[in-house]
Amino acid sequence: EMFLTENRYTLTITGAGTAAMECAIDNLCEPGDTVVCCVHGFFGDRMRQMYERAKVDLHLVTAPWGEPIDPENLKKTLDSLDKVDLVSVVHGETSTGVVQDVKTLAEVVKPSGALLLVDTVASMGGVEFRTDEWGVDVVYTGSQKCLSAPPGLSPITFSDRAVEKIKNRKTPPKSWYLDLMLNWKYWDDNPGYHHTGSIQTMYALHEALNLLQEEGLENRWARTKETAELLYQKLENLGFKMLVAPEHRLPTLTTAILPEGVDEAPMRKKLLTQYNIEVAGGLGDLAGKAWRVGLMGHSCRKESVHELHRVLSELLKGVTV
Amino acid sequence: EMFLTENRYTLTITGAGTAAMECAIDNLCEPGDTVVCCVHGFFGDRMRQMYERAKVDLHLVTAPWGEPIDPENLKKTLDSLDKVDLVSVVHGETSTGVVQDVKTLAEVVKPSGALLLVDTVASMGGVEFRTDEWGVDVVYTGSQKCLSAPPGLSPITFSDRAVEKIKNRKTPPKSWYLDLMLNWKYWDDNPGYHHTGSIQTMYALHEALNLLQEEGLENRWARTKETAELLYQKLENLGFKMLVAPEHRLPTLTTAILPEGVDEAPMRKKLLTQYNIEVAGGLGDLAGKAWRVGLMGHSCRKESVHELHRVLSELLKGVTV
Repeated sequence: EMFLTENRYTLTITGAGTAAMECAIDNLCEPGDTVVCCVHGFFGDRMRQMYERAKVDLHLVTAPWGEPIDPENLKKTLDSLDKVDLVSVVHGETSTGVVQDVKTLAEVVKPSGALLLVDTVASMGGVEFRTDEWGVDVVYTGSQKCLSAPPGLSPITFSDRAVEKIKNRKTPPKSWYLDLMLNWKYWDDNPGYHHTGSIQTMYALHEALNLLQEEGLENRWARTKETAELLYQKLENLGFKMLVAPEHRLPTLTTAILPEGVDEAPMRKKLLTQYNIEVAGGLGDLAGKAWRVGLMGHSCRKESVHELHRVLSELLKGVTV
Repeated sequence: EMFLTENRYTLTITGAGTAAMECAIDNLCEPGDTVVCCVHGFFGDRMRQMYERAKVDLHLVTAPWGEPIDPENLKKTLDSLDKVDLVSVVHGETSTGVVQDVKTLAEVVKPSGALLLVDTVASMGGVEFRTDEWGVDVVYTGSQKCLSAPPGLSPITFSDRAVEKIKNRKTPPKSWYLDLMLNWKYWDDNPGYHHTGSIQTMYALHEALNLLQEEGLENRWARTKETAELLYQKLENLGFKMLVAPEHRLPTLTTAILPEGVDEAPMRKKLLTQYNIEVAGGLGDLAGKAWRVGLMGHSCRKESVHELHRVLSELLKGVTV
């Protein structure tokens, strides 16, 4: 099982990864709960926005874009609070290319008794993640990233502790569509009707998980890491600078600052239109300065890196002449 | 355009029809709003449950299963209230096989100034529905019913009046994922990122809409009606009784009470396993007594009715001997 969990409450949401994010937050939080939200990029900030709608007592632990959350900062915040119900963090921040050391954060969270919620939309199946071993309570991902299935479905898993909290809610979750207990009936051994699942995407997701199992989860992690390392080397050869320190790099998404004098948007357009290679632009402060290069699932291949290097070598020659 | 509307705010939700239902209710309602919810079956009741989560001042107008909402009853309820923000009703109740006369209800609602929300999951594309002409403010449907596209997407449309109400909200909608204004940016002429849409299903939906356009919306309505009338006649010949009075029958879903002495579940199982014909069992009071026979989109063909009749004639002969 991709999540590496024995959790009984493991199911699939009919919707994008953001629907699973909202499912987690909506089911875990009641108004007035104390929540610590770690924000080190765009998707941590999206979680913050959802917590505001959930009317919780919200505390932020932040890190600059390009850096992970410092466990010491989280510890200080936790120590300053009487009780904490929930802590959340994004494992692979695709906005910055940073992977969060969730294992260490989980150790910091443990003494507080809080539940730990982790977003692995951009990392699950590509980067080491051990739900049960690390002690993570709720984890969700999307079908279309490292699993390379079509978008539209979002697997999510809940620990017994998380389900206990949900079963003891005083108020129902805000959302009926994303209510875990109602959704669970749809996925139970003796299923009832809740909504109509996206059945053709489920078959595709099932096949994607078969492919993952055939390759082996740890082999997939290793392939992703090796391919990412080749990418760093090839991009550095071309004058790109890596935004993120080596130990914090998310292998599934690389943020690379362009060599000086290169117009990023026209170059990206050439890549796409002439060579059918799509890379993403930088977000926030990185707009116009950095590229985000994805290496997820099927497209995470050394051949792709060599092709990108070959094409970029040509294009950059043209520019700097 | 299938909705027969000029509304600019017409988009597609990545999720099941229930997600569109929640999108509508979540965006249109603020706590304390006065809402009149018409309930004449399972899906009207689902809307009621969502209104409770939205903490509105809720008033119900009900009809027994198998009957539509009586416009007079709605009028009485509207007249008894100082102001009404929203009225909602299900057009095609698949739990009972009743089609609601939305045109007449809309005339009743108009003087109150309330917005009118209509669920057309089981009817859009199969039964006459004229959003603008009838004056309906918000309408949603699902991809997998009369459109015969794969499930997972839900088209929804908002009138200018509805958008005005949403833009003037004092609180954001409960849901971030289903927030109309955030979703709209994703579908706007100059799209931004909100979530990853279920792209392969969108292509399928696009093709389904092409097929609808080729056939012609009014021709599709006529085909559905003719096929349903053949079904009534064939089932009545076999001793079935129609639950719903002729003038209130939903052509896309027929509720038929089985002839006496026929065990409904085993018969339904035989149909499915031996003949690959699926009919649904009755819900609520109708469980064990009635069948629900769908005639939607592609599968709404006279050949299917003739085949069902042929097979049932044989099976019922076996039973009554």
